[in-house]
Amino acid sequence: MRGGLNNERLLGLKEKSEKEYAGVKAKGLKLDMSRGKPGPDVLELSNGMLKLPAGDYISENGTDCRNYGIIDGIPEAKRLFAQMLGVSESEVIVGGNSSLQMMYDAVARAMLFGAADGFDPWSKSKIKFLCPVPGYDRHFSVCETMGIEMLSVPTDGNGPDMDAVERLVSEDESVKGIWCVPMYSNPTGIVYSDAVVKRLANMKPKAPDFRIFWDNAYCVHHLTDEPESLADILGECKKAGNPDMVYIFASTSKISFPGGGVGVLAASAGNVAYIKKHMGFQTIGSDKLNQLRHVQFFRDLDGIKAHMGLIKNVLKPKFDLTLDILEKELSPDGLGSWHKPKGGYFISFDGAQGTAKRTVALCKEAGVVLTGAGAAFPYGKDPEDKNIRIAPTYPSLEELRAAMEVFCVSVKLANAEKIYNLFTTFPAKVI
Amino acid sequence: MRGGLNNERLLGLKEKSEKEYAGVKAKGLKLDMSRGKPGPDVLELSNGMLKLPAGDYISENGTDCRNYGIIDGIPEAKRLFAQMLGVSESEVIVGGNSSLQMMYDAVARAMLFGAADGFDPWSKSKIKFLCPVPGYDRHFSVCETMGIEMLSVPTDGNGPDMDAVERLVSEDESVKGIWCVPMYSNPTGIVYSDAVVKRLANMKPKAPDFRIFWDNAYCVHHLTDEPESLADILGECKKAGNPDMVYIFASTSKISFPGGGVGVLAASAGNVAYIKKHMGFQTIGSDKLNQLRHVQFFRDLDGIKAHMGLIKNVLKPKFDLTLDILEKELSPDGLGSWHKPKGGYFISFDGAQGTAKRTVALCKEAGVVLTGAGAAFPYGKDPEDKNIRIAPTYPSLEELRAAMEVFCVSVKLANAEKIYNLFTTFPAKVI
Repeated sequence: MRGGLNNERLLGLKEKSEKEYAGVKAKGLKLDMSRGKPGPDVLELSNGMLKLPAGDYISENGTDCRNYGIIDGIPEAKRLFAQMLGVSESEVIVGGNSSLQMMYDAVARAMLFGAADGFDPWSKSKIKFLCPVPGYDRHFSVCETMGIEMLSVPTDGNGPDMDAVERLVSEDESVKGIWCVPMYSNPTGIVYSDAVVKRLANMKPKAPDFRIFWDNAYCVHHLTDEPESLADILGECKKAGNPDMVYIFASTSKISFPGGGVGVLAASAGNVAYIKKHMGFQTIGSDKLNQLRHVQFFRDLDGIKAHMGLIKNVLKPKFDLTLDILEKELSPDGLGSWHKPKGGYFISFDGAQGTAKRTVALCKEAGVVLTGAGAAFPYGKDPEDKNIRIAPTYPSLEELRAAMEVFCVSVKLANAEKIYNLFTTFPAKVI
Repeated sequence: MRGGLNNERLLGLKEKSEKEYAGVKAKGLKLDMSRGKPGPDVLELSNGMLKLPAGDYISENGTDCRNYGIIDGIPEAKRLFAQMLGVSESEVIVGGNSSLQMMYDAVARAMLFGAADGFDPWSKSKIKFLCPVPGYDRHFSVCETMGIEMLSVPTDGNGPDMDAVERLVSEDESVKGIWCVPMYSNPTGIVYSDAVVKRLANMKPKAPDFRIFWDNAYCVHHLTDEPESLADILGECKKAGNPDMVYIFASTSKISFPGGGVGVLAASAGNVAYIKKHMGFQTIGSDKLNQLRHVQFFRDLDGIKAHMGLIKNVLKPKFDLTLDILEKELSPDGLGSWHKPKGGYFISFDGAQGTAKRTVALCKEAGVVLTGAGAAFPYGKDPEDKNIRIAPTYPSLEELRAAMEVFCVSVKLANAEKIYNLFTTFPAKVI
């Protein structure tokens, strides 16, 4: 194809894309697709929860949820989330509304006091975390603010490159952690294979206080009727003699309300005891009324599953539409690749090298705000400048159609500009 | 009087006390007065809140409180708590359900990152906090777990001994903070005088990153119709050229629900900007639905005041009863001293030296659990073993009467035992 290109044809291509772009820009859209947020159409499915608790404020263990007490969550909430995460009730700590806060606190606790009794605080030395990429920007920000060096590890459809992970953790005692979003990963949507989960659980880290930060944010967030399944990391860690190696996190932010959900942590008995000891200095207890509200609304795992079915009915058409438009607009010219997620909140788009930042800038100029290019990489730097996280959940279908039109036109223009610049800057080389 | 005592009379006194004690113990009470908790009679005054928000989930700035966003609280919540604390709206950060967590986080943030940009993390060196005593055990626990050395400072009816405070902060750069409960102090119930507040605001600490931790937990918790007033610490700090020297904390734990309230922090623009920057790594936002719930229920400061009037009607009889019993049972023999608080949650009892631990143990044996003796002092060590924190808010009046009977009988027995031991161990000296 390149053989047939000349400056004039390239200019023509670029001008055609510019014209299309001017057209979508003229529509004056104003859409924020920067974060993975549910839309009002999903939020309203949980409105009934806000009438609860109605009259009954007493936990099954007799604690008045309106009053002080219970550092690790009311028993019925622990049971509900134990079911959801496939762990035992005693392995669960139910917190406030933010699982990110529980992750941040887990890192901060290890920085200040060590990851367990008898270990040095992480802040005493220069430490490193492994970051499978592309990944979740807020995980990486926690490392960055704590001064933890991040080492990128590539991922494929099965999870992180385990050869690389095993080599890094076994060689270097300063490697203290790895961030994982194992199910419907943010942003790629992939699910870690059983083999990857087992290899993670069976690692022999040089650092005895190494921790897997297992952010199972999308554990029940299926988009198909045949949900993927994820191997039991805590069980595998126990089998491998590494019971303390993993912290599991989840929340109801994308089940009930991001602005008033419940965060949860699950870990070994040893980790739970250590964390509770430190939490005891930090708070008298998390919001038990909100925990009770959630239990009264969902009742059990079947209740959560039924609710997630309602959410799937809202979200699936948005994912389908997004994928259809990408397929129709970009596949014929091979202008990018993406995974079709069976759950979660994102579509991870890989365009041509060196086009992601420009594409996001063009979208913004045309009124569509996307997550910043590079956000899915440590330090916000995508070495190939090709990855863009698409978050199709918030807009209505009409808005999404308009936004994806802007996106595809922007991708085309960014590509046309790139090819034009490449050919016209180095004409001797390529023509 | 001592001249008239002999071993036999002392033994008689002790035996009389033992008999009284056996009598109350036989009643088999089971009462927990260990923490400052509201009773169900106070909690039910806020039950109406749990039907909110009803239908309207949108903040006045257009944010859907059910969704992500707003790190520092919805504007109407900031305004409500700004009124309550006498600061401006922009000086307020509304958090989750726990002001203790906001205090802990403020210390942890300074330990990890420094108290402000350009300052060393506190964890880089050995630091100290001033602790006016008796004080709040959970403040001291935060210091203890962080490895911060605590220096006790005596208090009187006007607040901490400011000569001592000024000397310590001006001499020693490692002194980085002071814990204050300035209004209806935990446990003494005193209110800092205007002069003390001004002297605090005008300190010239040797440490430029010194902070006053101003836990205004009882700012609207009056027990009389002529409430005490507290000078404006943030305003005084600004006037003194020390705008960043104070963090103010409060919560609705003892206004609405301890198990589902709202915590709040107020500080200078500089501090707020620094804290928000760090909070941005920690969470996407606190529970906005609970913030909205509180605003819809209380509406404004007048609403809070009216509600606190209802709470006063429940609590005042409990304080009155407690004080009456102390007066009637212990004053005639001079077996202790206490302040009559005009607000707050506690009565601080000072018995004879060396009797507090024994008194608390006797109460426990008779089924009445009090806060551990010494809890109001750093490291849990009351150097004189005389202070006991009485928390009269939780029990019903009947239970409180029974508990205070146990308490007074235990005080008497502890005193009788002490005097008996003293006289019989050193008979030559005293008889």
